[in-house]
Amino acid sequence: MFEARIDASVLRECIESITAVVDEGRLRIAEDGLKLRGVDPANVAMVSFELHRDAFDDFRFKSESGGESAAAAEVGIDFVKLRGIIEIGGREEVDLKLDEQAQKLFTRMGSLAYTISLLDPSALRKEPKVPELEFPVQVIIETEEFRRTIRAAEKIGDHIMLGVDGEEFYMQIEGEMDKLRLGLRKEQLIHLTPGTLHSLYSLDYISAMSKGMSHAANITLNLGKDYPLQIDFEVAEGKGKVSYLLAPRIESE
Amino acid sequence: MFEARIDASVLRECIESITAVVDEGRLRIAEDGLKLRGVDPANVAMVSFELHRDAFDDFRFKSESGGESAAAAEVGIDFVKLRGIIEIGGREEVDLKLDEQAQKLFTRMGSLAYTISLLDPSALRKEPKVPELEFPVQVIIETEEFRRTIRAAEKIGDHIMLGVDGEEFYMQIEGEMDKLRLGLRKEQLIHLTPGTLHSLYSLDYISAMSKGMSHAANITLNLGKDYPLQIDFEVAEGKGKVSYLLAPRIESE
Amino acid sequence: MFEARIDASVLRECIESITAVVDEGRLRIAEDGLKLRGVDPANVAMVSFELHRDAFDDFRFKSESGGESAAAAEVGIDFVKLRGIIEIGGREEVDLKLDEQAQKLFTRMGSLAYTISLLDPSALRKEPKVPELEFPVQVIIETEEFRRTIRAAEKIGDHIMLGVDGEEFYMQIEGEMDKLRLGLRKEQLIHLTPGTLHSLYSLDYISAMSKGMSHAANITLNLGKDYPLQIDFEVAEGKGKVSYLLAPRIESE
Repeated sequence: MFEARIDASVLRECIESITAVVDEGRLRIAEDGLKLRGVDPANVAMVSFELHRDAFDDFRFKSESGGESAAAAEVGIDFVKLRGIIEIGGREEVDLKLDEQAQKLFTRMGSLAYTISLLDPSALRKEPKVPELEFPVQVIIETEEFRRTIRAAEKIGDHIMLGVDGEEFYMQIEGEMDKLRLGLRKEQLIHLTPGTLHSLYSLDYISAMSKGMSHAANITLNLGKDYPLQIDFEVAEGKGKVSYLLAPRIESE
Repeated sequence: MFEARIDASVLRECIESITAVVDEGRLRIAEDGLKLRGVDPANVAMVSFELHRDAFDDFRFKSESGGESAAAAEVGIDFVKLRGIIEIGGREEVDLKLDEQAQKLFTRMGSLAYTISLLDPSALRKEPKVPELEFPVQVIIETEEFRRTIRAAEKIGDHIMLGVDGEEFYMQIEGEMDKLRLGLRKEQLIHLTPGTLHSLYSLDYISAMSKGMSHAANITLNLGKDYPLQIDFEVAEGKGKVSYLLAPRIESE
Repeated sequence: MFEARIDASVLRECIESITAVVDEGRLRIAEDGLKLRGVDPANVAMVSFELHRDAFDDFRFKSESGGESAAAAEVGIDFVKLRGIIEIGGREEVDLKLDEQAQKLFTRMGSLAYTISLLDPSALRKEPKVPELEFPVQVIIETEEFRRTIRAAEKIGDHIMLGVDGEEFYMQIEGEMDKLRLGLRKEQLIHLTPGTLHSLYSLDYISAMSKGMSHAANITLNLGKDYPLQIDFEVAEGKGKVSYLLAPRIESE
């Protein structure tokens, strides 16, 4: 049994953070809230999403199968479809109700009821394992500064380098004729671990991710040398958190 | 002889209510105002439009052929072209002047004069007869509630069911995987005739119509069982009225 | 040596006035400011651009080759690329720095550095000669009135006639079925030389130009009989000026 109520704009922010990486996925519903982990079809990007029950105005969950290991429900959801409908609601409340028997999720915004059939979890990709990673460097940056640089980068090239050089964090894009570089010193950032390393990433993925983080004030970039990038940020006013993981590109030369 | 002056935004609202169904049509000009009736090329939708002379800041008409039956001028107008020009004018006044001899309509907005050749009425479709219809149920609803549901429906399916179930009015769309339903009880509506009936309509037509009604605060839905839908609303602050008529789809099953 | 600082919105306005006619061009940098002259690929339109050093918050230039005739640097710039990046900057300051050795232009907006390779001037079209023209008629008109008419004209035809008839200035477009005409009497204009003449121009070019002039309050139209059109306006709050020159179309009849 799962029934909950949440602000439409909070739910939209959450769904947008997920659809920046995957269109559909297995949502795990448990007593303490919602969780999801998904990888994009090319196995290049991963999203980990958690939303605590406190983000809801009302949250009720009871496991239907009594067993201990089954203290969570796992449901397959087409997030792109759900996003389409939630966009219509402004700052209204959304009521959610799961019918596991019928394999339906009911949502209600005022007088508008939307029923979506659940996807068969066995037909969806398995929940990925999160690789064990250690990031030597962390950078905390204002989201808008990061997103603005990504928007400029899209006009120039396909790949973006993220790195630190001493006490400076930089983002760098090279096109055929031109080069864009954002350089921020430690005092212009919220946090920086000094170091000397960089990695190259596909801009398409970071562009998509930058749309998913638009409601967060700050993001944390976890960096290594020719290493995956992990971007962490909060949703739902701190009651939820999202991590994106992106594989590096090998620099050709 | 026809000469008139009208607010550009009122004229735009009127033209948009017409172009929601037809691109061109036969406008009848008489002493008490303007009238038009047209059907879409597929014969599925009809628009009836009336604008009283009081909607004009100035309105002068005199029949050129003295005969009694000819106490109106009938002119063929390309409304899509006319709309394109009127959109440029903000809240300016538009002067209209008909030259039946030259078969031209002159419009003037400030210093900008626009002359459009009339279409030959004999080349246009004949004015349709309005079928005699009796609608057992009337529902009066806020336009924005209706339009919002249509916008959500467009993301899901091709057909929409409109019906009443006791004291509830509903709009329902079923996609392959999902279902959207707006349900409004009598007290949430401006008016409802209780009953039990529904009809299915093509969403494309209702979507187009919903753009034509965007300036009206309320619309009246006239419903029957597997029956045409008639939507009535006012334009020009009550000095004009528009009716859309839409043939039902036969439910396959 | 060239180093300068300028408001991003002023620089954007300047670049947009150039890209209305050419994508790339030879920018001449001298002690008193910047100059550019370019023709479009079809040899139909020309832009002449001048920006005085006073438009800059800081402006330093020293010729590298000591010769007298070489008291200016000539650099080939892809203005469309540069515009793309400058659009990202709001009302920030932009720092410009030329490296003639490396054939690069450095721009910096806050922490964002953009380096663009210069185009080889010898690969660009030669700077056109400005033909000697004498315009019998001058009209000074509010830019917005002109641009609004162009927007309406785009819905009707491909050519536009500009002319004066006594003390009236007019713009006229004839489509297959319709005709648009703006007529402004002397007292509705900022200035008018009375006369009787007109010329026909390609609307595509004037549409592009009308985007380049959007920041100017007024424009001066220099007209003749079947003669080129010259449009003059100011940029950078009077510290720069732009002239567009457009060849007439021969009226077929």
